[in-house]
Amino acid sequence: MKKNHKKKLFSAKVFVRLKDGVLDPQGSTIKRALLDMGYKGIEEIKTGKVFEISFGSEDNKKSKVLLDEICKKLLANPVIEKYRFEIVSKK
Amino acid sequence: MKKNHKKKLFSAKVFVRLKDGVLDPQGSTIKRALLDMGYKGIEEIKTGKVFEISFGSEDNKKSKVLLDEICKKLLANPVIEKYRFEIVSKK
Repeated sequence: MKKNHKKKLFSAKVFVRLKDGVLDPQGSTIKRALLDMGYKGIEEIKTGKVFEISFGSEDNKKSKVLLDEICKKLLANPVIEKYRFEIVSKK
Repeated sequence: MKKNHKKKLFSAKVFVRLKDGVLDPQGSTIKRALLDMGYKGIEEIKTGKVFEISFGSEDNKKSKVLLDEICKKLLANPVIEKYRFEIVSKK
């Protein structure tokens, strides 16, 4: 007899940012632009990416494995970037 | 007598994403890539940006005004993007 693998809809937010110590030219450029615009108090700006993903999965554990794979293979460059994610079950 | 305006260090995270209904070609491309790679359950991917900002400010209220200005003028395009931020006082 076939086991019932019913998929639920999950939603996740993946945050990807450069590792500490890796130069962030986009962040430095924004900081300089803000200083030029007269915002004197800016100390540092670091940039990153967010991905909001909706996907079907059987449970929370499998969702984590899936997201971890996706991050390593496509969304983040593990050499210079680090990532974290939050999973929310939709139903 | 001069009033003492001592600045404290604040840290904020600004999240910028496309408004609902605005096409997200980067998200669609990532979704298609993941489907091609064999991840069948992906329903939707939306992309966004995060900015981690350290800055000096007098209090929480002024920090909010500052961040709101920065977002409108530089970090987000209010026509197609929406933003939100979280402020953390560091000291």
